[in-house]
Amino acid sequence: MLPRNFTEEQNMFRDAYRKFLATEIVPHMESWREAGIVDREAFRKAGEQGFLMVWPDERYGGMGDEDFRFEQIIIEETNYARCGDWFNTLHSRLVGPYLTRFGNEEQCDRYLSKCVSGEYILAVAMTEPDAGSDLAGMRTSAVEQDDHWVLNGSKTFISNGINADLVVVAAKTDPENNPHHMTLFLVERGMEGFERGRNLKKMGLKAQDTAELFFNDVKVPRANVLGEPGKGFVYLMMGLAEERLLGAAGYLASAQLSWDLTADYVKQRKAFGKPVAAFQNTQFKMAEMRTELDIAQVYVDQCVAAFNAGCFTAVDAAEAKLYTSELQVKVAELGVQLHGGHGYMDEYPISRQYTDAKISTIYAGSSEIMKLIIGRDCLGDDYVPFNTRNF
Amino acid sequence: MLPRNFTEEQNMFRDAYRKFLATEIVPHMESWREAGIVDREAFRKAGEQGFLMVWPDERYGGMGDEDFRFEQIIIEETNYARCGDWFNTLHSRLVGPYLTRFGNEEQCDRYLSKCVSGEYILAVAMTEPDAGSDLAGMRTSAVEQDDHWVLNGSKTFISNGINADLVVVAAKTDPENNPHHMTLFLVERGMEGFERGRNLKKMGLKAQDTAELFFNDVKVPRANVLGEPGKGFVYLMMGLAEERLLGAAGYLASAQLSWDLTADYVKQRKAFGKPVAAFQNTQFKMAEMRTELDIAQVYVDQCVAAFNAGCFTAVDAAEAKLYTSELQVKVAELGVQLHGGHGYMDEYPISRQYTDAKISTIYAGSSEIMKLIIGRDCLGDDYVPFNTRNF
Amino acid sequence: MLPRNFTEEQNMFRDAYRKFLATEIVPHMESWREAGIVDREAFRKAGEQGFLMVWPDERYGGMGDEDFRFEQIIIEETNYARCGDWFNTLHSRLVGPYLTRFGNEEQCDRYLSKCVSGEYILAVAMTEPDAGSDLAGMRTSAVEQDDHWVLNGSKTFISNGINADLVVVAAKTDPENNPHHMTLFLVERGMEGFERGRNLKKMGLKAQDTAELFFNDVKVPRANVLGEPGKGFVYLMMGLAEERLLGAAGYLASAQLSWDLTADYVKQRKAFGKPVAAFQNTQFKMAEMRTELDIAQVYVDQCVAAFNAGCFTAVDAAEAKLYTSELQVKVAELGVQLHGGHGYMDEYPISRQYTDAKISTIYAGSSEIMKLIIGRDCLGDDYVPFNTRNF
Amino acid sequence: MLPRNFTEEQNMFRDAYRKFLATEIVPHMESWREAGIVDREAFRKAGEQGFLMVWPDERYGGMGDEDFRFEQIIIEETNYARCGDWFNTLHSRLVGPYLTRFGNEEQCDRYLSKCVSGEYILAVAMTEPDAGSDLAGMRTSAVEQDDHWVLNGSKTFISNGINADLVVVAAKTDPENNPHHMTLFLVERGMEGFERGRNLKKMGLKAQDTAELFFNDVKVPRANVLGEPGKGFVYLMMGLAEERLLGAAGYLASAQLSWDLTADYVKQRKAFGKPVAAFQNTQFKMAEMRTELDIAQVYVDQCVAAFNAGCFTAVDAAEAKLYTSELQVKVAELGVQLHGGHGYMDEYPISRQYTDAKISTIYAGSSEIMKLIIGRDCLGDDYVPFNTRNF
Ligand SMILES: Cc1cc2nc3c(=O)[nH]c(=O)nc-3n(C[C@H](O)[C@H](O)[C@H](O)COP(=O)(O)OP(=O)(O)OC[C@H]3O[C@@H](n4cnc5c(N)ncnc54)[C@H](O)[C@@H]3O)c2cc1C
Ligand SMILES: Cc1cc2nc3c(=O)[nH]c(=O)nc-3n(C[C@H](O)[C@H](O)[C@H](O)COP(=O)(O)OP(=O)(O)OC[C@H]3O[C@@H](n4cnc5c(N)ncnc54)[C@H](O)[C@@H]3O)c2cc1C
Ligand SMILES: Cc1cc2nc3c(=O)[nH]c(=O)nc-3n(C[C@H](O)[C@H](O)[C@H](O)COP(=O)(O)OP(=O)(O)OC[C@H]3O[C@@H](n4cnc5c(N)ncnc54)[C@H](O)[C@@H]3O)c2cc1C
Ligand SMILES: Cc1cc2nc3c(=O)[nH]c(=O)nc-3n(C[C@H](O)[C@H](O)[C@H](O)COP(=O)(O)OP(=O)(O)OC[C@H]3O[C@@H](n4cnc5c(N)ncnc54)[C@H](O)[C@@H]3O)c2cc1C
Repeated sequence: MLPRNFTEEQNMFRDAYRKFLATEIVPHMESWREAGIVDREAFRKAGEQGFLMVWPDERYGGMGDEDFRFEQIIIEETNYARCGDWFNTLHSRLVGPYLTRFGNEEQCDRYLSKCVSGEYILAVAMTEPDAGSDLAGMRTSAVEQDDHWVLNGSKTFISNGINADLVVVAAKTDPENNPHHMTLFLVERGMEGFERGRNLKKMGLKAQDTAELFFNDVKVPRANVLGEPGKGFVYLMMGLAEERLLGAAGYLASAQLSWDLTADYVKQRKAFGKPVAAFQNTQFKMAEMRTELDIAQVYVDQCVAAFNAGCFTAVDAAEAKLYTSELQVKVAELGVQLHGGHGYMDEYPISRQYTDAKISTIYAGSSEIMKLIIGRDCLGDDYVPFNTRNF
Repeated sequence: MLPRNFTEEQNMFRDAYRKFLATEIVPHMESWREAGIVDREAFRKAGEQGFLMVWPDERYGGMGDEDFRFEQIIIEETNYARCGDWFNTLHSRLVGPYLTRFGNEEQCDRYLSKCVSGEYILAVAMTEPDAGSDLAGMRTSAVEQDDHWVLNGSKTFISNGINADLVVVAAKTDPENNPHHMTLFLVERGMEGFERGRNLKKMGLKAQDTAELFFNDVKVPRANVLGEPGKGFVYLMMGLAEERLLGAAGYLASAQLSWDLTADYVKQRKAFGKPVAAFQNTQFKMAEMRTELDIAQVYVDQCVAAFNAGCFTAVDAAEAKLYTSELQVKVAELGVQLHGGHGYMDEYPISRQYTDAKISTIYAGSSEIMKLIIGRDCLGDDYVPFNTRNF
Repeated sequence: MLPRNFTEEQNMFRDAYRKFLATEIVPHMESWREAGIVDREAFRKAGEQGFLMVWPDERYGGMGDEDFRFEQIIIEETNYARCGDWFNTLHSRLVGPYLTRFGNEEQCDRYLSKCVSGEYILAVAMTEPDAGSDLAGMRTSAVEQDDHWVLNGSKTFISNGINADLVVVAAKTDPENNPHHMTLFLVERGMEGFERGRNLKKMGLKAQDTAELFFNDVKVPRANVLGEPGKGFVYLMMGLAEERLLGAAGYLASAQLSWDLTADYVKQRKAFGKPVAAFQNTQFKMAEMRTELDIAQVYVDQCVAAFNAGCFTAVDAAEAKLYTSELQVKVAELGVQLHGGHGYMDEYPISRQYTDAKISTIYAGSSEIMKLIIGRDCLGDDYVPFNTRNF
Repeated sequence: MLPRNFTEEQNMFRDAYRKFLATEIVPHMESWREAGIVDREAFRKAGEQGFLMVWPDERYGGMGDEDFRFEQIIIEETNYARCGDWFNTLHSRLVGPYLTRFGNEEQCDRYLSKCVSGEYILAVAMTEPDAGSDLAGMRTSAVEQDDHWVLNGSKTFISNGINADLVVVAAKTDPENNPHHMTLFLVERGMEGFERGRNLKKMGLKAQDTAELFFNDVKVPRANVLGEPGKGFVYLMMGLAEERLLGAAGYLASAQLSWDLTADYVKQRKAFGKPVAAFQNTQFKMAEMRTELDIAQVYVDQCVAAFNAGCFTAVDAAEAKLYTSELQVKVAELGVQLHGGHGYMDEYPISRQYTDAKISTIYAGSSEIMKLIIGRDCLGDDYVPFNTRNF
């Protein structure tokens, strides 16, 4: 594969984080899967050792280094170590930045250190039973009243839904006139009327808690409005490119792991007197996936570079998300197949790689939504054909 | 779709069996999934009402009708009712016929009525930790001694492994000289030295018990040798066409269900103000699958007719198995995708359809083994090209 | 493969037709490809020997046997003999039946014998430069005037366009009020104002002439209106199921040939000291295609039986067309690939199989249009789910 | 898409070369296609204006700039301008470097200026009727005799075979003992016993001449041996990574053009009252291809950078070749499909894009050979799994 590009410091960071995972996280994953939820301690431990949130300013306890490659390292190593369903990145880099991006200083001061330390766990709640891809269909709404807002509605499929201490909740604030007039609220554990529903049973991502949330006349103080009222929808869209890049890095890392697990397996497994790796079908199928993985890795790495350079677009992100998530599913499927009956057993990691993978093409914008975004862009009027471009 | 072809009696049988399932099986499936094993009562109930084994002679309690379409109806309805992981067909038509096909009358008399009534549950044990596709790699072996054989070894991935009362066990009986010299033994629950291992945790087929079996100096009486010693491998091969046809009928029925569940879902689920069924992508993808399903159904039905007519070959069976199992996976995957986040939740049947499906391309001869069989046949020297045939 | 079902008479017919092709058609194909058009003699020769149109009544010179299997034999053998671009079926069974289906007796008497004898060659002209899939977009129109209609407009992509003596032309006859108000006209060679354009150069189907047709104030006598004025669109739709079945039989036969050509080739071609057929990739890919071919053949044969039995629907036909045409392309592509460099050379038949194939997914209703038809049907309200059907 | 990276000088070079193509090459392509061969003038014109060979030292008339991006620009623009079948790159960067890489100074002096000026046209002849993928199967051989070698044998599928003035010919020079003992000879037009066979008719690449070459007792002077005798096979392998990168850049550029042609078409073509671009199927399929193209472009660009940096491997090249050539075929196929009937007509460029594309997965090492290379590498023992790497 083509050479990758990390700084010496980043390589050391990778090493250290890998050790952290091996010691503090890996040994617990299976029991957390059993429990359907990660122990809050995991966040605290990571926070303590400086591995939870890297990007925030030092005064909040972070390293203050915004280079996306640190996050990429965290994502990659978490996945290689089979801790993907810890879902730490959702906390750290998906929800966390809402505070700095849209919040005011007071809000950052109030919450950010606690997030960096792992005392507070974050979640973001957009989806509702009847509104997923199409957020404008949401029913949760809030009305202003005195010095607070009154929030009503329910959310579902919320990652970290049970563990979360602080939830960014999207609600309509002018539902009659404008379905896109939304506001983001910082809802805290313990606010009256904020209840959690079931921790949903699901096909994979077993350690991650995915829950329903209910809001019954929750009084949210004005100070807990994130950014300007009415701009919620725009805010949600603004973070998407970055969020999908996080996703892409993770899906790809998971796919890499599936490939590696399978390569290991077919090299040692024998049938008809040969390693399964010796059959041409095995070699060709693995080679096809190896090719796609290597190409995708270069793409994701260049996306990260473009992100760092400030020239990463929503369409680039959609392509990265689409390609890597579909690849994750394909590699996992090949992996199970080449494991034979063992691929179907919980005790073989490839089995969970397979059930974990299938959500990647659905959440954070489904493959269909990615194609909508890309198709609209590239069949639009301002698309410049290659054959007339001067690069 | 093209008209199907069942007799009036068969249609009535379908109706009655469907009702039986709805009353006696469906309500328990979820708790059996929870338990990882089907209650033995299920077999007994089915036996009582004449739905367990249809083909055996009336003196054993069957209907004595060998028309495969009865079995097809059982398989289809079991799958449509989402009871596929009951795995009754393994008992009834996959293992059961070993008795009549290779066993002697005494053995039939001894066991068959109990199988028809559901008192005895059947299993077949070929696979071992180190030998799956390649049975010649098995290590379990038996030596003749006095009036019995002494059986040693272990098996794994045995369906109904925990529930089984009578297990057809394949063992090598001349391992030094001929790896294909095998003998089939009828091993009964309670024989000394016959132990069961864990009920394996697996991705899907949750209600079905899949287990390890151990044989330590098990004394198997001569009367429990099935057919002639040394012919076991040939016997195993002889049933394969029929077994794969059973499989194919089931995979296809499961695929049909996945499609139906998805069609229902997309018709009622709304996004962006329309049913998901109204998006062209949904329509086209569903139409592609509908096409493959309709074509596969005609093929399977014609296979059944050919089987009834005695002209169904191992290669036909391999094609049926290959195509339907791959289709089952594809339809389930599309189904999950079109269900969005709900597709990932246990409470939505499509989620289990997906995890159930993935074993179909692996067991009973993996897709790779099917391709080996077909490829060898059609690139062999006696293949007659279409363009020179006179049909 | 499963047994096929032809009568003794049909097998003899197949034999005789095969001999006819070998003698009268095959030797000329290459020069007709060079010329871009089939010699009219081909039709006459076939007519003479009773191989052109089988279904018409004996008084018109046919055999009067409507069993579709005769046509299927013609289509299959024509394709196996690599004479597919003769396009005789378009004449015989696609356009011919318009006369009996919608025409009156006088018209049949006037034309049918000449069509059966091959004196007259037929074509049908619907498509226009700006209207293909969507016929309602056509601009050709006709107005009634005295005892005739005046036809104006142009058509394109008309098969047999140069050779045709009699063309069924679709024109709008109430364009202002109803874009679907069309009438079919029988336009004869030599009518004033009827001109042919270029014989279009195309990727494949080299021997078939595909041309533009121009109509400038062509006076079409009333006696040449086919059926009732205004019903043209309905008429066009009525023949579609049959036409697509013709298509499907041919696409599949072509795919069978591609597979056979490739099997022959890989068995004799050597690389790295082995026949190319010995590599597992070759075997697996060929096995996948063999499977799809065998399954498709059973489907098409059952479609033919259903057609004969009068229970073949437009949706069945769409599925047959979609599946077989896509398969034709896939098999041809694999064939070229496995031929290596030779697959790219005109002198190797697989090369033309490839370029011929690609039109099949486009004309006679593109794959997209097939999916529209199927999708609309199976996501519609009257679709009965499998899991509730009683067959 | 992510930003690309060219110097200002390179952008100007692109502009100038594009103008050159538009003036001197594009207007003739169609007649060269008709003739099956490019006019030798094309090379001379390019040579004159400094666009034929950029990399050779200034004393040979080149620019002496080895940055691969100049070649990439040439390849891209040639393809965007639909002049791919001029095949100038084979001359310039595929065969040309054999002289500097393996030849001695005298040979460079003798030939290189003439190659740069376009006076001499180059070809390389490895393939034989019975040896393509497996070069060790070749039969052409040479024996040393006095001051020359006597060359006997024949080659086929040689690009520029008719036009070539100087052909690098591979021959066995110790056929009995070692099938890989080969020597490369510089065979010139006019040497006695060197004859050309037919200009082969082929599916696409119509303007490029592909021919058979015959060698009957050709006396090749010692001074025309390239490098050391016996090292020919190694030499052929040494250029492969670079050659496949050339290929990849071209296949991808052709794929980009196919996509652009199709995007243009679907935006203006109407059906059912809408642009074809407005159907979701069109958008989704185009978006899938757009995604793969953008990702592949980043990969190829990074391969070029790695090549420039000296760290580009044979496996990287195999992946690039495999992925881009398969993509070229896929995009062209989608393009034809979305063009409807027009896609099948010679006058629509997409039609030739399709027939041109299919050779890319075959020559310069077929997709199967690429998978062999990659599979062997990544299932070999020194593969380092991602999940243990420290990048
Ligand atoms: C494990 C898990 C964790 C999650 N975590 C969170 C979280 O933390 N916070 C949160 O807010 N949400 C979360 N979600 C929700 C997730 O983002 C949504 O499930 C996702 O956006 C899809 O929405 P949906 O499920 O409503 O599907 P739907 O929107 O109902 O889509 C159903 C199907 O229709 C397709 N479709 C929709 N629109 C179109 C169109 N225009 N054209 C063609 N096809 C279309 C979709 O692609 C999909 O295939 C999570 C979900 C899961 C399963
Ligand atoms: C839920 C479940 C129920 C089962 N029930 C039973 C049962 O009741 N009784 C029983 O005896 N067994 C049972 N099995 C075992 C099952 O039949 C085997 O798992 C299956 O035959 C595959 O064998 P394997 O797992 O050893 O895979 P392997 O044979 O190790 O195969 C590994 C991979 O290599 C591939 N491969 C193997 N040979 C080749 C080749 N020559 N060329 C190319 N690829 C090749 C395979 O296709 C597969 O992808 C069950 C398995 C499961 C998971
Ligand atoms: C060799 C040849 C022979 C022919 N012979 C005849 C003949 O004898 N008589 C005759 O009348 N015609 C003939 N045709 C014409 C042929 O039937 C048309 O080309 C075909 O119907 C497609 O129409 P089009 O080319 O206008 O494509 P368009 O209708 O322009 O379609 C362009 C693309 O858009 C897609 N598309 C269209 N509508 C939709 C939709 N709603 N949703 C999604 N995608 C859509 C199409 O599938 C296609 O991919 C022939 C064509 C060829 C090439
Ligand atoms: C237009 C054109 C231009 C060309 N130009 C040149 C040129 O300038 N100079 C030159 O020397 N050659 C040239 N070639 C030849 C080209 O390089 C060969 O065609 C190519 O290498 C494939 O070799 P083959 O045709 O002998 O295929 P074969 O080697 O016979 O391969 C047949 C099939 O078997 C497959 N196969 C082979 N080995 C294996 C394996 N181990 N496992 C699985 N599958 C396998 C192949 O992939 C292919 O699908 C050209 C060819 C064409 C068509």
